[in-house]
Amino acid sequence: MNLGLIFLSELVGTAMLIILGGGVVANVALTKTKGFNGGTLMVNFGWGLAVFAGVTVSYSSGGQLNPAVSIAQLILGNITFVAFLVYVAAQMVGAIIGAVIVWLAYKNHFDEEPDPAAKLGVFSTGPAIRNYGWNIVTEIIGTFVLVFVVIAFTNGQTPAELGAIPVAFLVIAIGASLGGPTGYAINPARDLGPRIAHAFLPIKGKGSSDWSYAWVPVVGPLIGGSIAALLSLALLPVVA
Amino acid sequence: MNLGLIFLSELVGTAMLIILGGGVVANVALTKTKGFNGGTLMVNFGWGLAVFAGVTVSYSSGGQLNPAVSIAQLILGNITFVAFLVYVAAQMVGAIIGAVIVWLAYKNHFDEEPDPAAKLGVFSTGPAIRNYGWNIVTEIIGTFVLVFVVIAFTNGQTPAELGAIPVAFLVIAIGASLGGPTGYAINPARDLGPRIAHAFLPIKGKGSSDWSYAWVPVVGPLIGGSIAALLSLALLPVVA
Amino acid sequence: MNLGLIFLSELVGTAMLIILGGGVVANVALTKTKGFNGGTLMVNFGWGLAVFAGVTVSYSSGGQLNPAVSIAQLILGNITFVAFLVYVAAQMVGAIIGAVIVWLAYKNHFDEEPDPAAKLGVFSTGPAIRNYGWNIVTEIIGTFVLVFVVIAFTNGQTPAELGAIPVAFLVIAIGASLGGPTGYAINPARDLGPRIAHAFLPIKGKGSSDWSYAWVPVVGPLIGGSIAALLSLALLPVVA
Amino acid sequence: MNLGLIFLSELVGTAMLIILGGGVVANVALTKTKGFNGGTLMVNFGWGLAVFAGVTVSYSSGGQLNPAVSIAQLILGNITFVAFLVYVAAQMVGAIIGAVIVWLAYKNHFDEEPDPAAKLGVFSTGPAIRNYGWNIVTEIIGTFVLVFVVIAFTNGQTPAELGAIPVAFLVIAIGASLGGPTGYAINPARDLGPRIAHAFLPIKGKGSSDWSYAWVPVVGPLIGGSIAALLSLALLPVVA
Repeated sequence: MNLGLIFLSELVGTAMLIILGGGVVANVALTKTKGFNGGTLMVNFGWGLAVFAGVTVSYSSGGQLNPAVSIAQLILGNITFVAFLVYVAAQMVGAIIGAVIVWLAYKNHFDEEPDPAAKLGVFSTGPAIRNYGWNIVTEIIGTFVLVFVVIAFTNGQTPAELGAIPVAFLVIAIGASLGGPTGYAINPARDLGPRIAHAFLPIKGKGSSDWSYAWVPVVGPLIGGSIAALLSLALLPVVA
Repeated sequence: MNLGLIFLSELVGTAMLIILGGGVVANVALTKTKGFNGGTLMVNFGWGLAVFAGVTVSYSSGGQLNPAVSIAQLILGNITFVAFLVYVAAQMVGAIIGAVIVWLAYKNHFDEEPDPAAKLGVFSTGPAIRNYGWNIVTEIIGTFVLVFVVIAFTNGQTPAELGAIPVAFLVIAIGASLGGPTGYAINPARDLGPRIAHAFLPIKGKGSSDWSYAWVPVVGPLIGGSIAALLSLALLPVVA
Repeated sequence: MNLGLIFLSELVGTAMLIILGGGVVANVALTKTKGFNGGTLMVNFGWGLAVFAGVTVSYSSGGQLNPAVSIAQLILGNITFVAFLVYVAAQMVGAIIGAVIVWLAYKNHFDEEPDPAAKLGVFSTGPAIRNYGWNIVTEIIGTFVLVFVVIAFTNGQTPAELGAIPVAFLVIAIGASLGGPTGYAINPARDLGPRIAHAFLPIKGKGSSDWSYAWVPVVGPLIGGSIAALLSLALLPVVA
Repeated sequence: MNLGLIFLSELVGTAMLIILGGGVVANVALTKTKGFNGGTLMVNFGWGLAVFAGVTVSYSSGGQLNPAVSIAQLILGNITFVAFLVYVAAQMVGAIIGAVIVWLAYKNHFDEEPDPAAKLGVFSTGPAIRNYGWNIVTEIIGTFVLVFVVIAFTNGQTPAELGAIPVAFLVIAIGASLGGPTGYAINPARDLGPRIAHAFLPIKGKGSSDWSYAWVPVVGPLIGGSIAALLSLALLPVVA
């Protein structure tokens, strides 16, 4: 597959991911929405099925949508370094576009929301208890689970007729189980792209984009994805 | 497939969609039901699985059930203009029949419900913050996501052994993620058909059918579906 | 398949259905359980996945588990009248056994529960607003949806590789959407069998078994299943 | 498959199971998490999808992850006694490792949680009403349902293209339906392994590991799994 098509496919898929993923946070967190206070499980389903939709529309490029997945594919030798850069660039641009679309879909509710933190939460994650060391541990563990199980799928360890559904279930699980401390970025593009959008969009009454935390959901997932790739070579029989 | 069978199939499927979709709103919103105040996620599941059931019983006509899907099929050249009209007419008649059946199933609860707005909500959508411009933007975005991802399915972009399940997951996702501002009509027949039923049914203590808003969930979804068809030609490799 | 194996298979499947279906009501309704007040959606999932498990273990007899499904198969000419009687007898015995097992699993909680109505609710359904005429209409509609969509599956209208999953999704949908007025018995064996168990089991502090309502969830589902069979001949192309 | 690969595979799978299963309890129960008070259904989904992820990564060894499943395979003659010991040892080691990882992921929240019972609940189950006799009955019934339905899958009773998804649905069902009295250990390794981790980890402000109850979720599931194996020979046509 040529790199231009990969770029287009990953951009479209990651935009779709953020439209639905950012959207469910907006629905649960912003004032006067119909889903206000809809609960954690609803957020978990929203993000999980967002991955389902994103992977579906970017199926032709493998639906990676996540630099932590792409770095694992690079380590496993499935993509070249140039392709890796194309994947990541497309994921970043797609994530920014997706975040802009969420803001448009919820424009009235952003305008009427009084709390700047609720607005930022639609775009990017933040820790429940701020402690960079342990926050990064949580992001490493969450991303390790994501990428390790995805490698088991993509290497034919299990039946593959289900398309994008297993990864949706996996992301619902990670959100429910490992999302408690940091809000499960587990994807540098998912967090940094929308944070950039938050910084440049003319959002009424917005506050800080919390750049002091921004490196955690970038570095943690890249480490977690790398560990997953290396351990999969040792622990998953079909990979090596 | 002949047009008479298409008409029958789409009518049956759309009636099934509205029976279950309108039903879940009745269960959550009307007084004294067992599901009263069951939450947004329950409504999302109800509508998503309603699409699942509707598509299943109208599988032979493609289970379009939605003029926004049908206009996309028309733009993509998959159906003729006459067939498009047959699809839409069947969807409208089916939606009206489905709404009547919901009213019968919840007759006691309609009779005892004091709030006219709760009654209308079982039939048709309304905005959380009334602002026609932004409301139509939200409906365009929601319907774009629906139709764009459905085109990815129906053109073989992804494995297709799952029948009606992917579209159910997609509709759960759209409800959770993009339903906050307008209640995600994303389907002109789903909104206008039941609104007509609300107008002519002898519902005890009913209020206005809110005709001033009725054009938004018709025009928005038709625009969103059209954009999805056009962009799919540019962005999804298997379609063009 | 011989009638003895059918009897065994339907008995096992219906017992499994009631263990999990009655169980989820016990978990949500009885005092001091870990799932107390777990919500309507949890009950919907419990019953839907109970059907999934029941159909799985009775796959060899078709996993009918419901006299309303069996009467439809009789009308469609798929089973003989003698086989119909065997199906129904097995379903009744299985439902009674399943209800006894639920009582054993929740014995401590039945003993400490002060409200007799909560106890009966674990076994059998009752109306939110008692009105036999409209209650039976609701049961007819709910069972019609169940059996009509099941016929679409079992006659090859749709891809069939999913085993028992589609019927689970369908039952979740019916519970969420049409369960509000009567608690969706939609199955004479599911309601009457456990009601008999409630009458003969030595449940501490139990109240009436509400026999005056018992005919509604028997007659309604049998009518609904019959209508579904007849309409499927007219409306589903692959059946006739 | 050689025993070393089985050991590795079951260890990895059971660790994955506990990371996600213990994680969801931490998210719902520990102070200041984003999923605090997320509800019983969220816990049910977390554990069910934890099994999904665990089975996926240990697919090559059959993804048993549970001594109650392994004892049934032993009784059915599918594995040797030596293999059984290897399965159980791997499951225990994996469960301990998984519990340590949960503690690391939620380290800040364990440190700030004032209630020792909430901390133990992340690791091991405890009864809602302490009564060893009836608690063991509940664990027997729950595990019987798990293993009996799993045997129906693994013996080709039903279509098998779905990989790990049916067992995930089954575990969601058991949690919702039979988890009320004892918190559904239904797996000796899932309960005893993390309890050992609770005993040796330097958890801030931890209380008792409740060893007086520890035998119930070991003995009950082993009995339930054995009964399931024996009854499957009598009741499931394809097994015998």
